Amino acid sequence: MRIYLAGPEVFLPDAIEVGERKKQLCANYGFEGVFPLDAQADLAGISPREAGLRIGQIDENLIRTCQAVIANITPYRGPSADVGTAYEMGFGRALGLIVSAYTNVAEPFTPRTQKFLGVGSDALVDPNGMTIETWDLVDNLMLDSGVIASGGVMIVHNGAPDQLYRDLTGFEQCLAMLKRTPKTR
Amino acid sequence: MRIYLAGPEVFLPDAIEVGERKKQLCANYGFEGVFPLDAQADLAGISPREAGLRIGQIDENLIRTCQAVIANITPYRGPSADVGTAYEMGFGRALGLIVSAYTNVAEPFTPRTQKFLGVGSDALVDPNGMTIETWDLVDNLMLDSGVIASGGVMIVHNGAPDQLYRDLTGFEQCLAMLKRTPKTR
Repeated sequence: MRIYLAGPEVFLPDAIEVGERKKQLCANYGFEGVFPLDAQADLAGISPREAGLRIGQIDENLIRTCQAVIANITPYRGPSADVGTAYEMGFGRALGLIVSAYTNVAEPFTPRTQKFLGVGSDALVDPNGMTIETWDLVDNLMLDSGVIASGGVMIVHNGAPDQLYRDLTGFEQCLAMLKRTPKTR
Repeated sequence: MRIYLAGPEVFLPDAIEVGERKKQLCANYGFEGVFPLDAQADLAGISPREAGLRIGQIDENLIRTCQAVIANITPYRGPSADVGTAYEMGFGRALGLIVSAYTNVAEPFTPRTQKFLGVGSDALVDPNGMTIETWDLVDNLMLDSGVIASGGVMIVHNGAPDQLYRDLTGFEQCLAMLKRTPKTR
């Protein structure tokens, strides 16, 4: 089983090393990990815009070769997951892949959002009047819902603050659960 | 053509009214707009968690009935789009839908991210050492790339600050472009 390894760790200075650690863990469980930076893109002589668009299509095509996604939905520059990761979760889900996710921030979505907004713990709307979600889920309901409906698991774990995007405890729990999941497609 | 109307306006206190305005504009162009809140979910007697998960599946199923998505990717609680919207874009893209998007914040992604992080305009990494993207795109490259590859359009427009989630100028431009697009599937 090939597993697409979605997450904002691609933005780390040591992204390649973190990807290699993830792929080794996959191998330990008998899976093949596919990291977004695996595919070598030929970006010579094209504009940054064209390069960005090309990388996006390479990653979409990598997801199409996989049977599962494990997404790192640790909050990224705000109270929610990285939007590229969210996009890839939806992409994988629509293709029928098993989509699992883990976060290294255990604080629930509602208080996390309230703290980000600087509003009190009784506030149910933000200063724009927009709802603060209270579904008792890990992030926006589309993410949780896609994971559960796909047959994946959602792992919540508190990572060390300086290792938020490198801690693979929850990632390995996703692998262990996937190992126990009957192949569903 | 049925168009799924993705965006964080579902969190507005007047979400239903904004949805009705979007659907009327769709009708003006000969399309049928499908708003995430259209489907009546039977949430009686279930927990918030179960309700959230159910709504997510209802929305996935609504997307499956559509041939296009128009996503409001105006930055939401951070420098990027709402993650639920990003998920729905990826979901629609994987199904082969035409995915268009609009934002009511014209400031490019790179300075927008730098301002959110409180770093200077020459900073190319954040305080965690994580890359600040410089692809000259509107948001994370997966979003831009999915839109362009799907045959959709990306509309950038500056809305009034107090109408960021209600301004439909860019939305209507997406409709006008869609009207001129040959049916591609």
